[in-house]
Amino acid sequence: MVGYAIDINVDTGEGYGRYRLGNDEEVIKYVSSANLATGFHGGDPVVMWTTVKYAKKYGVAVGAHPAFQDLRGFGRRVIKMEPEELKSDILYQLGALDAFLKAEGMKMQHVKPHGALYMVVENDETYAEAVIDAIRLYNPELIFFTEYGTVAWKKAKDAGLRVVSEAFPDLQYSSEGKWIIERVKKPMDPSTVARRALSIVKDGSIETIDGKTIKIVAETICLHSDSPNAPEVAKTVREELEKNGVKVLPVSKILEGA
Amino acid sequence: MVGYAIDINVDTGEGYGRYRLGNDEEVIKYVSSANLATGFHGGDPVVMWTTVKYAKKYGVAVGAHPAFQDLRGFGRRVIKMEPEELKSDILYQLGALDAFLKAEGMKMQHVKPHGALYMVVENDETYAEAVIDAIRLYNPELIFFTEYGTVAWKKAKDAGLRVVSEAFPDLQYSSEGKWIIERVKKPMDPSTVARRALSIVKDGSIETIDGKTIKIVAETICLHSDSPNAPEVAKTVREELEKNGVKVLPVSKILEGA
Amino acid sequence: MVGYAIDINVDTGEGYGRYRLGNDEEVIKYVSSANLATGFHGGDPVVMWTTVKYAKKYGVAVGAHPAFQDLRGFGRRVIKMEPEELKSDILYQLGALDAFLKAEGMKMQHVKPHGALYMVVENDETYAEAVIDAIRLYNPELIFFTEYGTVAWKKAKDAGLRVVSEAFPDLQYSSEGKWIIERVKKPMDPSTVARRALSIVKDGSIETIDGKTIKIVAETICLHSDSPNAPEVAKTVREELEKNGVKVLPVSKILEGA
Amino acid sequence: MVGYAIDINVDTGEGYGRYRLGNDEEVIKYVSSANLATGFHGGDPVVMWTTVKYAKKYGVAVGAHPAFQDLRGFGRRVIKMEPEELKSDILYQLGALDAFLKAEGMKMQHVKPHGALYMVVENDETYAEAVIDAIRLYNPELIFFTEYGTVAWKKAKDAGLRVVSEAFPDLQYSSEGKWIIERVKKPMDPSTVARRALSIVKDGSIETIDGKTIKIVAETICLHSDSPNAPEVAKTVREELEKNGVKVLPVSKILEGA
Repeated sequence: MVGYAIDINVDTGEGYGRYRLGNDEEVIKYVSSANLATGFHGGDPVVMWTTVKYAKKYGVAVGAHPAFQDLRGFGRRVIKMEPEELKSDILYQLGALDAFLKAEGMKMQHVKPHGALYMVVENDETYAEAVIDAIRLYNPELIFFTEYGTVAWKKAKDAGLRVVSEAFPDLQYSSEGKWIIERVKKPMDPSTVARRALSIVKDGSIETIDGKTIKIVAETICLHSDSPNAPEVAKTVREELEKNGVKVLPVSKILEGA
Repeated sequence: MVGYAIDINVDTGEGYGRYRLGNDEEVIKYVSSANLATGFHGGDPVVMWTTVKYAKKYGVAVGAHPAFQDLRGFGRRVIKMEPEELKSDILYQLGALDAFLKAEGMKMQHVKPHGALYMVVENDETYAEAVIDAIRLYNPELIFFTEYGTVAWKKAKDAGLRVVSEAFPDLQYSSEGKWIIERVKKPMDPSTVARRALSIVKDGSIETIDGKTIKIVAETICLHSDSPNAPEVAKTVREELEKNGVKVLPVSKILEGA
Repeated sequence: MVGYAIDINVDTGEGYGRYRLGNDEEVIKYVSSANLATGFHGGDPVVMWTTVKYAKKYGVAVGAHPAFQDLRGFGRRVIKMEPEELKSDILYQLGALDAFLKAEGMKMQHVKPHGALYMVVENDETYAEAVIDAIRLYNPELIFFTEYGTVAWKKAKDAGLRVVSEAFPDLQYSSEGKWIIERVKKPMDPSTVARRALSIVKDGSIETIDGKTIKIVAETICLHSDSPNAPEVAKTVREELEKNGVKVLPVSKILEGA
Repeated sequence: MVGYAIDINVDTGEGYGRYRLGNDEEVIKYVSSANLATGFHGGDPVVMWTTVKYAKKYGVAVGAHPAFQDLRGFGRRVIKMEPEELKSDILYQLGALDAFLKAEGMKMQHVKPHGALYMVVENDETYAEAVIDAIRLYNPELIFFTEYGTVAWKKAKDAGLRVVSEAFPDLQYSSEGKWIIERVKKPMDPSTVARRALSIVKDGSIETIDGKTIKIVAETICLHSDSPNAPEVAKTVREELEKNGVKVLPVSKILEGA
């Protein structure tokens, strides 16, 4: 009998110059996959390299977290652009991150669009295609992260990419399965997040904000690293999952049947 | 008997967004190596990809032209920074360019620092080491372009990199072997540049601004692409060299004894 | 009997660092109002000051040409943002330009949003209000440029601003009164633009792309400065207008009944 | 008999987009003058306006804190540039900040260069002149902050500007009167800073790192706002000064003999 396994991913390396967001090392140590900012919404080259080294130190798989080129808006503002521009921007960001992985003898595992780009590719065919084309051109072995059943999910599957569905145990879901992101994040109780994570993994379901339970498909769960208690949440979630017989592994290992 | 061979390199892909500098395609077609801006002093991702495609079309070898991160100053202003920052910035830029080469099935041939960075690494050990370290970490097969005998030249040799010396037939040299760059470039007569190029290749010498002749060592000659008559100059230089029995080849081919 | 008078405005000072767009001085000398880029889509501080000096030299009134903060996209890409962000961005840009006017002993005449922002405020109440609020807070004497009857036109009127309607004799209009901007501008014949300008001023009408004639209300006409023959067009338009008894004056003078 | 009076100034409004540095409001409330970042090293338009509002709320005088255009380096890296560039950049930044003051019915009190620019103008005549020229052109009533006796201090005096000398009670001084800034700031004990501030104001002296006492001239003392306990330090310093009969006032009030 095969046991349960899940990937925990976290957005990280989002500082820039003098600015820091969250504590990268303290969070990375508890997850299995790290989505690294690539300089367009955060993450300058020094931050990127430092974060790659943390990932290496803790045996965490690294993915790219490309974004709209908008440091001021932290990649959370939609910039309307031509598909060719977006495709070029994705290639640029993938290559830039790969340089640090190469320097550390590591391989890129996955790609997860950031912020406004994440949302846009979930709903818009043109943008989704541009991102997926760029990934395929760059390296067709890369795993694409998105939510189950979105436009991007279908496009990436059709394009032959390996697609991994993700869920957000630290966000509230509506009964339509949409999550709500708050500008000022209220820290969720670690044990609540852990319970929700476990429910996602073992039952394939999550409780909604209005008390219902909905189905959810996820091979990776995302924890946010910029809430004040992020390290504690990550630690608690991981421990709770493992205590309940769930292996926490980079999703590439899970796909390989590790 | 082995004949003469030389590489002609040109700085290119230096437009940004709505802005264009020179006519990339018209110049690239006459050279053997192209130094591509990597987004820090010019060259956004769209421009980079377009220029990589031109290089592919005309069988021109591609190198990275990394710079200080200073679009406003076009990479011509020294930014004093820590070696670790510079090293990270170089890695970032090498990776970013490589993404487009990968997408086009090409390989990076060389690295030539741009503008103020070019000058700084020629004279400063710390900056030179930072750049060379980054190149070695990224890909020790890359060829490094600098002038003969500079600090960077020695450091790169010591580090085991393949180093190629370059000369500038379209710039004026002092009798100390230093060239002078003018803010507003006066176009040099194409046949004068061609004559100077030929003298560099065949005689290993160049005429100085005060009428003397000095020794110069160069395996590649650089032509500037932003002067108004750049394509004409490139065409004339190439034709004149070939007419005089000099093969124009990417420097990697010359090093391989092609 | 009062004769005809019109303002000719031109977008200018759109270079950045090493990059130049059009020939600012050659175009400014033929117009009566100049819209100066304020650093967000083009126009660094050096360019701004230089262009203000040209305006002073030729007695041309200066207005601000604020934009979305997007040098890469030249302000032509919509960035979805909060009204408070936009309002802050407009204030910032107005103040920045005013510093150079102050240094030259000049006063700002008007504000004309640039590119994507121009279009967005013509159609969207929230964005229009943000821009108009910022202008009123900054200086309620400033004249607002937009097209006749747009959302921004109404909002600005309601807010008590002086509003000036503009028309584009060098662009093609559809029979619905919408103009089409081409990515790569084909230069229009100078005498054609002049004839269209005259028709706007004297008849209040313009010929459409499908050969009809539509009504158009304009107290200022905009000429684009980035087409290759921009100076010639501006010269021809001005001469033709004056030859036909139309005074060319800064719109503030026209409003004052000069 | 006239009592003691001193100005306390603080660098503030240095966040950018999603990034925050220190707690602007909590520190501003204890000082008399605030140096506001102007977008070049930190401080986007939203942050600037917000911080201006805090200053208004607490009756704190506002000055500009212009910098080298280097968000990535937080204005701490010297960028070698032409005086005309620097002059233009200063004008741009002064105007931009003034827009928010204008919107709030306030007046700019002073100018204090930031980071690397602060240091450079203290020692380099050309840079000092560029900054001082820009200030005079913009508004000759502005007060210039620098350290006593520096190149900038002399140049500004010669140029007829009102110059105010500042001291740093929360930094260590060498016996040559130079202070040392640490990359990672170790919070100084609030009562120690208060004691040092009092010694500056009442005795015109400060204790050096090697236990000596040196003379120091200061009409304003600067407290750093980015140390973890900045609000507590500011509160303690202010209370201690007032308890010892020292009035804390904006320096413009002190100069006017308030």
